Order: sequence, then structure tokens, then C-alpha cells
Amino acid sequence: MKSYKQLKSEKRRVAVVGTGQTKFEARIPDKTYYELALEAAMMAMSDAGITLGNIDSVVYGIYNDLFERQIMPDTYVHDYLGMYGKPGIRITTGGATGGYAFRSGYSEVASGLADITLVIGVEKAQDCYDWAQGKTTPEVIKSIAYSADMTWEFPLGTSAASSYAILASAHIKKYGTTEEQAALVSVKNHGNAIKNPFAQSPMKITVDDVMQSRMISHPFKMLDCSLYTEGAYALVLMSEEKARESGVKDPVWVMGIGSSNDKSFTGSRTVNDRMGKYGDIADLRNHYESAALAYRMAGVQNPGKSVDVAELHDAFSFTEIQAYEAMGFCERGMGGKFIEEGVPMMDGDLPVSPSGGLLGAGHAVGATGVMQIGEVVNQLRNRAGERQVEINRGIGLAHSIGGPGSSYCSVSVLGVD
Amino acid sequence: MKSYKQLKSEKRRVAVVGTGQTKFEARIPDKTYYELALEAAMMAMSDAGITLGNIDSVVYGIYNDLFERQIMPDTYVHDYLGMYGKPGIRITTGGATGGYAFRSGYSEVASGLADITLVIGVEKAQDCYDWAQGKTTPEVIKSIAYSADMTWEFPLGTSAASSYAILASAHIKKYGTTEEQAALVSVKNHGNAIKNPFAQSPMKITVDDVMQSRMISHPFKMLDCSLYTEGAYALVLMSEEKARESGVKDPVWVMGIGSSNDKSFTGSRTVNDRMGKYGDIADLRNHYESAALAYRMAGVQNPGKSVDVAELHDAFSFTEIQAYEAMGFCERGMGGKFIEEGVPMMDGDLPVSPSGGLLGAGHAVGATGVMQIGEVVNQLRNRAGERQVEINRGIGLAHSIGGPGSSYCSVSVLGVD
Repeated sequence: MKSYKQLKSEKRRVAVVGTGQTKFEARIPDKTYYELALEAAMMAMSDAGITLGNIDSVVYGIYNDLFERQIMPDTYVHDYLGMYGKPGIRITTGGATGGYAFRSGYSEVASGLADITLVIGVEKAQDCYDWAQGKTTPEVIKSIAYSADMTWEFPLGTSAASSYAILASAHIKKYGTTEEQAALVSVKNHGNAIKNPFAQSPMKITVDDVMQSRMISHPFKMLDCSLYTEGAYALVLMSEEKARESGVKDPVWVMGIGSSNDKSFTGSRTVNDRMGKYGDIADLRNHYESAALAYRMAGVQNPGKSVDVAELHDAFSFTEIQAYEAMGFCERGMGGKFIEEGVPMMDGDLPVSPSGGLLGAGHAVGATGVMQIGEVVNQLRNRAGERQVEINRGIGLAHSIGGPGSSYCSVSVLGVD
Repeated sequence: MKSYKQLKSEKRRVAVVGTGQTKFEARIPDKTYYELALEAAMMAMSDAGITLGNIDSVVYGIYNDLFERQIMPDTYVHDYLGMYGKPGIRITTGGATGGYAFRSGYSEVASGLADITLVIGVEKAQDCYDWAQGKTTPEVIKSIAYSADMTWEFPLGTSAASSYAILASAHIKKYGTTEEQAALVSVKNHGNAIKNPFAQSPMKITVDDVMQSRMISHPFKMLDCSLYTEGAYALVLMSEEKARESGVKDPVWVMGIGSSNDKSFTGSRTVNDRMGKYGDIADLRNHYESAALAYRMAGVQNPGKSVDVAELHDAFSFTEIQAYEAMGFCERGMGGKFIEEGVPMMDGDLPVSPSGGLLGAGHAVGATGVMQIGEVVNQLRNRAGERQVEINRGIGLAHSIGGPGSSYCSVSVLGVD
């Protein structure tokens, strides 16, 4: 792996130079997924000061073929965007789709195959609407459950919530993390979302509200869980050479990317394996590995002291606590205490998920990881409006996970000179 | 885009250093898709002289979630291979899945994110078996048909065969290409497959056999069409630095990659658009564009005189004729004559699809494009056994297409020093 220092000295860096997004909402029945993608892409290209003709390739983050009952949905977005004549690929790694799409966008540019690449995450579940009742149907949950191994685990009723609940329960047992500590994550993120005009679930709530919300999958109550969301987010990536040529004023550099796919069965095989040198199932092995890889590439030694702002994956509140530890923001097992002490709050030393995260801003699955990176980019550019945090060292981090028991994890470290 | 010449001078080339595959068969009921992938991967790693621990990342080519009723199938292959701790992504671009997976594998290494990347294409349709009758069911065709736009074209009965048949019909009308000329492609490729021990459909047939086989979708008869196939193919890619370090004896360099996604609707919008400067629907615009990009990167001026051997996508016989033209092996409209004159025959000046192609070797969708590149690699290394063609200039080409009306096209140019 090439280090950021080496890439910088060779002027082979990749910058994020534009962001754009639609509103994140429970359902956007009057727009197709093509239209959502176009809306986000137009905004990102305008931010980057480029037009369609400047783009060399596109990476699409689109999660699930069953939501639209459409295989190869990316080919229809590509057509609608008028991108024909350019290559486009699609990444589909569950909740981590956006993070891995960004990683592939990075490699498009860093490899020299493209000078400018557009990364678009888009999420829509048209085929899962109950038009008569005006709401999204349980088909969404069923389509997500198809991520469990269809031979061994789907028949047992494994779902997204239950596989993450197993991981959270192990953390409670091993480290004494409390449900109240996890509830603080929900309070923080729903609260942060109030200052994000694109957010789905801005709410001023209390720990009691979370504790008293209905049980979903122990220890997750309703307010511990993110909701299904529709929407799109786009980023423009440029080579250093092209960014200089184009006179980009505030490029945000990709300093490090680290990704690791864990074992996929949440059943006994995974548990046994996780009992090895990487700690047990309470410690998310591939989250630690991804962070280590990303920090090594970026040359970050002490993340807790170097990172100004982070967006961590909080599909479930407990997961953010586990991520504080895996990202090296605090010691193992101290994630609960970390939020009790206020460190990840908006006025804390290391604000986490100023966007509102998945709980507050919404979990538009294919777009989520792209949104998280876009938020970090805008924070580092000091363009986050009312929710701007203080940037001192110029380094931010985005953490994108997904798949059965979070088998996918990609960590991106971004920075300004 | 960086040129091959520039990459070579900077020692930033990427080499293919190992190939491996399973048998391609109509159905392999006793093996899961995990097992097929592992079999191909072990063979490719052994060829490359490496083990699991040397691999930095994996790119999976897996076509269709509906065949196994499993979203994110790559995460299960990754686990089974013991690749946990490493990143893995999946590419899914229809029939072009293998070609685009190779392109992403290239960018993994060329970007510096990985030194060694494994590219595995695997195809299986377990969920489409009729176990009682012992054969694959029409569910396969239905799952493929979900590639047509579900709002506008699926309801009209658009299928893989019918969308390519429209393109072939236009070629007949514009250039006078005959069904007998297309039948020659089928005769050649089924014949070539006789010397490929991994092939699904080795057959000595005549033009008459093709003409008299039953009609599928005019002008395609049964023997003009490739069959659905199960199987896997794997490639090991290495950075130039790593290949030198590892003492690889006969690296095959990636000289050029060109990819272009066309408009996706085979309906009137596409036809109208194709009436513009890129020629009409008879000329496959994105095939021309991909070839031009790949040749520009590779520095190939006169492909008809430079290329020793090619694997062209022949899901349908006519498509190979259209590809002769788009790849610049002959003039526009002269594809039919090109095969009549014997140029692409095994003993001709530019042998095409010595593997047997999709018609003869089989169309294991996710694996097909990977197989085509592997065949070119082995031809260039003079390791193609009984089907070895003469290598003079040391340059080969693989052409991978897919999606509705071949909306995806990726061309890879490979070479030896």
C-alpha cells in the first residue's frame, strides 16, 4: 500500500472537490431513483465547477436489486444522467455500499483510469410501497433479510437488527456497556440532525424517550434504530493534477482508505473465529483492521488527538459506541464512558456525526456512506453551516459498515493541507 | 488517462500472473458457488506461486442476485475463501461482469491500494434448479429478463436474446450481413471448443446445422445462441514491483483498458440517439468507444495488424461479427466477409476465441469476461496447449459486453514484452 506521504510527494493525490444531495426522507414517491441521482449529481458538479462532459467515469452505490425489482439499476441511472460514452460500475456492499463506492471512486482516479470520477449513492424502494396505505411495506425488511445466508441463517429469522443486536449484547456482557449509554447516542444524533436541513429525523429527545420506546430486538428499542430512507448523495473526485489545473480552492484530500471484510456468518463459526487473537464478537475485528489500514496509509499515529470530526455508522446506537473503540478514539470497552463524558458531542473534543448520522439524518442505504464522507468534506472545508464544528488539525474520518454482522467495513481519512 | 508507455516508463504497470478455472457446465449441482470460486482461486494462486496470505484485495464478478436468491453473495465467497481481514468488492454489469471486474482489479493495483489482487468470476443458479426434472428452469431466463427496464421494457417481453436480435437485424438491413455468415461464427467457436477441456459445448457442426436449428428470436436460431453455464474463473493481478520481486517469469501486462456504457433503453430513445454521429443501432457505439480508449492507452495504432489473438463476446453469433468491426479488425460492415475469408479461424491471420468463446466454452455470466482474459493471457504465455495460436507481436485483446442491448462494454488489451 502506498502511503499518503509518498502519494503527496509524487503529486498523485486524489481530492474530493464537490458534494451534492437530495433531501433524505422516508419515502419520495414522486421521484424515480434516476431523478434522485441526477438531482444529487447536478448539485455536486455545480459545487465542483464542472459539467457532465468533464466526468471520466462514474461509480454507483446502489444497495438492493429487490427494492426496485431491477437488476443492473445503475445502467438506467447512467443513461438518465446522459453519461453514455463513459464507463460506470456499481458497488453493492450492504450498509457499507457508500463507503466502498467511495473507495472504488478513489481507485478510479488514483489508478490513472480517470481524472475526474463521480460517486453517486442512491436509495429507493419503489417496489415496496403500499400505495393504498401510502407507506413502505414489510417487503423492505424482507429484501434486507436476504443478506443473511439463504441456506443457513435466513431460515432462522436472522435480520439486520438481530445480527447487530448479537454484537451489542456481547459488548454489554464483556464491558458492562449500558442501554442508557447507547441511548445517549440516539439523543445526540437525533439532536444534531435538527441543524441539518436535509435530515429525515431531527428530534429533541431524552434518554427516557429512547428507553421507553418499543422493543425491536433486545437491546435495541425503536429509537436505537435508524429508519429506512430514500435519497441520493454525490461526490466529485479529482486527481491532484486536475484539481490544480481547474483552480479548485479548497480540495479535501483522501489521506487514507482502509477496508476489511469479516467472516459473514453471525452464527457459531464467526463467534469461534472471533474468539481468536482479534478478540471476541464484542470487538468488531474488521472495524479495527480497517481503521489500522487507513491510519497507516494516512500516517495518523494517535487518532483520538488527530481527528477533528468523524461520521460513524450508527444504524443502531450501540454500533457507534463500538466504533469509538475500533476507531481508536478511546480504549477498548470505554465507548460508553466516552459518550457519557461528552467527548463526541457537538461541543466536545471530537464531535461525532454532526450530520445527525444514520439515526438523525437517515439511512438511505446505498447513499449513506457517501453522505458521511460528504459531511466530513464539508466540515473540513468549513462549509457545514449551522452545524459547523471547530477544525484545528484538518483531519476527519468516515466509517462505513454493512452486510451480515457488519461483514463489510471501510474507513476513509480525509484532510486539508 | 495515463498511457501504457508512461506507466511502463514509471514502472507502474499491472501484470496478470496467474489463471485458474473450473469446468464450465450446464449445471454443477454438487457444488455451491463458494466451492466453485475456491477451486478456481486455488488454481490461479498456485499458477502465480502465491498463497492466500499474499492477496491484498479481491474483486468478485457475480452477476445476478436472483439466481441464488441471495443479496451480497460475495461476502459468503470471501468468508469461504478465508479472505477475511482483506477488502472485497463485487462487480455486477450483466454479461460484462467479468470484464468490468478485471477493470476494477486493475485499478485496485494501479491505484496503490493493493499490490496483489485476485479477480474471481463465478456463476451458479442453484435457486433455478428443478431437482425433480434434473434441469435448470425458466427462472433463469426470468431472472435475466429483470435486466430490462422494469417500468418500460420488461412488460413488453424484452429479453436478452430479443434485445441483441434487434441489433443484429439492423446490421443485416444496413450491411447485408447474412445468417450464413453468422452461422460460420457458431461453427468456428463450437469447433474451437473441442480442444478446450474445460468447455461446455465442444461440437463439430456445419452451417446447415445452425440454419436448421430451431428459431429463438429472429435472426437467432438455437445454435446462434450461447447457453447458460455454471463455473468459475480466477486471475491473479500484481504490480510491476511485486512481480519483479516475486520473480514472475512470464508476466502479461495490462496495456490498455477502455470501457463505455451506452444508453440502456433498446427502445426508441436509444435508436434515435444512435442515429447521430455515432452511427445507427447497427453499429454498437460503446463497443467502438471502448476499443478506441483501450487502443489509445495501449498505443495500438492498427489493431488488425497488431493483435495476435482475441476473445470476442459471442453470446449470439452475430455479435461477434459486429465486434470484428467495432474492434477495428476490419472495416465497418465487412464483418461477415471477414469470417467468410477465414481471418478469425484458428489458422487465420487473427484467430478469434480459440477458447471456443461463449458459444463453445460456455457463458458462465459472471465468469465469462474473466475467462476470456485468462484465455488471452495463456495464449500470450504460449500455454494454451492444443489450442495454442501463433504469437508474433505479443498483443491480445478481450472484449466483454453485457446489459440491455449491450449497454456495458469493456475492452482489455494485454501484451508481453
